[in-house]
Amino acid sequence: MPHLDPFFKQVDTLKDTFIERLREAVAIPSISSEDERRQDVIKMGHWLADQIKALGGTVELRELGQQPHREHLVLPPVLLGRYGDDPKKPNILIYGHYDVQPAQKSDGWNTDPFTLSIDEKGRMYGRGSTDDKGPVLGWLNAIEAHQKAGVELPVNLIMCFEGMEENGSEGLDDTIRAEAKKFFKDADVVCISDNYWLGTEKPCLTYGVRGCNYYSVEVSGPGADLHSGVYGGMTHEPMTDLIRIMNSFVDPDGKILIKGIDDLVAPLTEQEAALYPPIAFTMNDLHEGLGSETSIYDNKEDSLKHKMRYPSLSLHGIEGAFYTPGAKTVIPAKVIGKFSVRTVPNMEIDEVTALVEKHVNEEFAKLKSKNKMKFNVMHVGKWWVEDPNHPNYTAAAKAVERVFGVKPDMTREGGSIPVTLTFQEELGKNVLLLPMGSSTDGAHSINEKLDKRNYIEGTKLLGAYLHYVAGELKRG
Amino acid sequence: MPHLDPFFKQVDTLKDTFIERLREAVAIPSISSEDERRQDVIKMGHWLADQIKALGGTVELRELGQQPHREHLVLPPVLLGRYGDDPKKPNILIYGHYDVQPAQKSDGWNTDPFTLSIDEKGRMYGRGSTDDKGPVLGWLNAIEAHQKAGVELPVNLIMCFEGMEENGSEGLDDTIRAEAKKFFKDADVVCISDNYWLGTEKPCLTYGVRGCNYYSVEVSGPGADLHSGVYGGMTHEPMTDLIRIMNSFVDPDGKILIKGIDDLVAPLTEQEAALYPPIAFTMNDLHEGLGSETSIYDNKEDSLKHKMRYPSLSLHGIEGAFYTPGAKTVIPAKVIGKFSVRTVPNMEIDEVTALVEKHVNEEFAKLKSKNKMKFNVMHVGKWWVEDPNHPNYTAAAKAVERVFGVKPDMTREGGSIPVTLTFQEELGKNVLLLPMGSSTDGAHSINEKLDKRNYIEGTKLLGAYLHYVAGELKRG
Repeated sequence: MPHLDPFFKQVDTLKDTFIERLREAVAIPSISSEDERRQDVIKMGHWLADQIKALGGTVELRELGQQPHREHLVLPPVLLGRYGDDPKKPNILIYGHYDVQPAQKSDGWNTDPFTLSIDEKGRMYGRGSTDDKGPVLGWLNAIEAHQKAGVELPVNLIMCFEGMEENGSEGLDDTIRAEAKKFFKDADVVCISDNYWLGTEKPCLTYGVRGCNYYSVEVSGPGADLHSGVYGGMTHEPMTDLIRIMNSFVDPDGKILIKGIDDLVAPLTEQEAALYPPIAFTMNDLHEGLGSETSIYDNKEDSLKHKMRYPSLSLHGIEGAFYTPGAKTVIPAKVIGKFSVRTVPNMEIDEVTALVEKHVNEEFAKLKSKNKMKFNVMHVGKWWVEDPNHPNYTAAAKAVERVFGVKPDMTREGGSIPVTLTFQEELGKNVLLLPMGSSTDGAHSINEKLDKRNYIEGTKLLGAYLHYVAGELKRG
Repeated sequence: MPHLDPFFKQVDTLKDTFIERLREAVAIPSISSEDERRQDVIKMGHWLADQIKALGGTVELRELGQQPHREHLVLPPVLLGRYGDDPKKPNILIYGHYDVQPAQKSDGWNTDPFTLSIDEKGRMYGRGSTDDKGPVLGWLNAIEAHQKAGVELPVNLIMCFEGMEENGSEGLDDTIRAEAKKFFKDADVVCISDNYWLGTEKPCLTYGVRGCNYYSVEVSGPGADLHSGVYGGMTHEPMTDLIRIMNSFVDPDGKILIKGIDDLVAPLTEQEAALYPPIAFTMNDLHEGLGSETSIYDNKEDSLKHKMRYPSLSLHGIEGAFYTPGAKTVIPAKVIGKFSVRTVPNMEIDEVTALVEKHVNEEFAKLKSKNKMKFNVMHVGKWWVEDPNHPNYTAAAKAVERVFGVKPDMTREGGSIPVTLTFQEELGKNVLLLPMGSSTDGAHSINEKLDKRNYIEGTKLLGAYLHYVAGELKRG
């Protein structure tokens, strides 16, 4: 068992310094999706680079040029950094992002979003506090606490911090591909702290995310929108056809009705099934998240499995139909239904698309309508799953137990985090999601916060993980 | 047969005067739905009153006070006029409106919408030319031509011209109710010239309109919109439920699937069936109107019956779901589906609503969903049908044959014209729709026009009708 107490003690000692570091970071409004804040994003990248250099790291701010389709904007740089270069130590690639979601006090924040505001319960409010400045600074805090405690870091760190995560990660995949055999070539494993615990008490390790195939079905007929009084009853109506097609995808209990989809889903093994019961999650937690008691399943395990390891299909809406309040007697001429399938192992993107397209064509043919139908693929992204028994995970689990005194929840995210798959595919290395924040942090909402406990104990966790992963990798 | 030639000749002689009258009327932008044009609507009412007085009629401009819910606006007056008061003559109530739809050159007009512009084919372009200034002035033209021809008008005219038709006819129903036993008490029949021929060559008499019951179904569940990655598969989704319900109303061929609706529809009699084959309408006309070849039926008769004498059900759209271009991975928390039923004899408003509500409740119950569902009635309006064998129609048919040399099409409108029902119910008198314009006039569109032929021969038609209706009523 690594000797970590001097490090832990130093983290506690430096607590206020670390909070000041977060306060400085939150004060830079690095909103990547707002043109007028682009300079602040770049400023934030430089601030972060300076922090790393002050700790003795080396940094390159890799420029990415103009933003595609928005040529008046320069992309913020990807920060490629190193801390330590001992060839005898394993190399851990850490990823995070230094940009944030938009925020304005007038959106409903109780405090200024770019002034870190700490309440009596230790909740530190501020845009980026939990997503993802807190976790990124956690790595820096861990380095500083090691230095001040006189404890040697047992690994070399390879850093990849981007500034466009909240705006499509423009340029990141290209950089990872380009550097896979260069800057990143020595990486032994990857660790990302950019998601959240399932609840508020128990840390988790995340070993998978679902993919997303997003489709549309366009039905058109009349040359222009028609008056339903004048033409109702005489013509095939695109809305009637589209609703029929959309009705055929999924039943009210969420069961996907597209033939062949179920056959692609990897069967649940006993080993995997055993991961669900210990997860710290209750039906109350789910109902709180939903804001309603509309859960399909009445138990935690089924609910979690259907978020994490089974596909789902959602109907998002219809473009081209009447959508405002009030009444309009229109027969819309062209309507586009939007829906998406959340995918899981072993649903390959193209296999799923082929099944969906076949289904849509068959359903439309059944209608014998004179309208025209077009099926479109809007965007696709594959699921990512790791082996949770890999040494990278074993190490993180031990670190959680050491710092928090509990075994972590082993979770998968229902939504997608595309960078996980890119690292896995381009580097061929095990990727671990090791979150710092809790489920109540409100990452993309108003009043985003990070609890002091999560920040400080999270810093300990990240540091401890480096020791355990060094041990596991040496052993492995 | 009335001796009408001197009147007809005088109409031809006065042609240019009548066109100047229309030019003056079109020049007043009496848009009832635009606050800043309200004074122009009022100005138009006064201009019309002055025209009638100049012809020897008497006029009262009935003030209606402030506009409900828009108290900063004064309603334009209802013009109550009389021409002739010979107790031995029958009294014909004529209705029309002097306000117009909005129009701006920048909407795509080829000419200034408020300057009457006549092209080489005799098409007179201008907002209100056909809807409804041309027809209203047709009555005045007929009076003037009678005077100048030295032919006595065989009827007294009772006039009701409103200035809010394009903005909900605010105040009109109350006025009709209030005056039914007063100003309108002597009316023997009602004639309205405010709709259109089915095509461009053959006049029609319109003896019915469909009603419209407009409903919404609201399905709600989650407390707020959810991320489909995070929650998809765990919760009942309001969109899935709503699409199921909307799918149950009508099949792609327009057949209404709500139990009991069909039983309310009056059976087609042989006499009524015989009205359809002579109607001047082709499948080409329908396809031109649709801008597509998406007609449900392959023959004229079935198409017309389903516009005129059978109900239809249209799905208009969904409020609360994702509706813009692009892709959004949202589970909408509350969605409201809008649909309406076009009603025909003998579908009573409340009977239909009861059947629809029962159906919606049953369909929702089948889903066994934990979401909440609410059925709403948004607005209702009853169908109106007259006996097309009434002397009022016989007279009009004879007038058409005299002026145009053809038997008119006997038609019903698919859309609603609420004032017809109000006159029928409040006065208990036969109401006739006797249109002047043709199907290509583009009443509510850009480049609205009235053909010279329709205006001049239409003026003859209105005058001739007054003679024939006097004869028929005397006989009856």
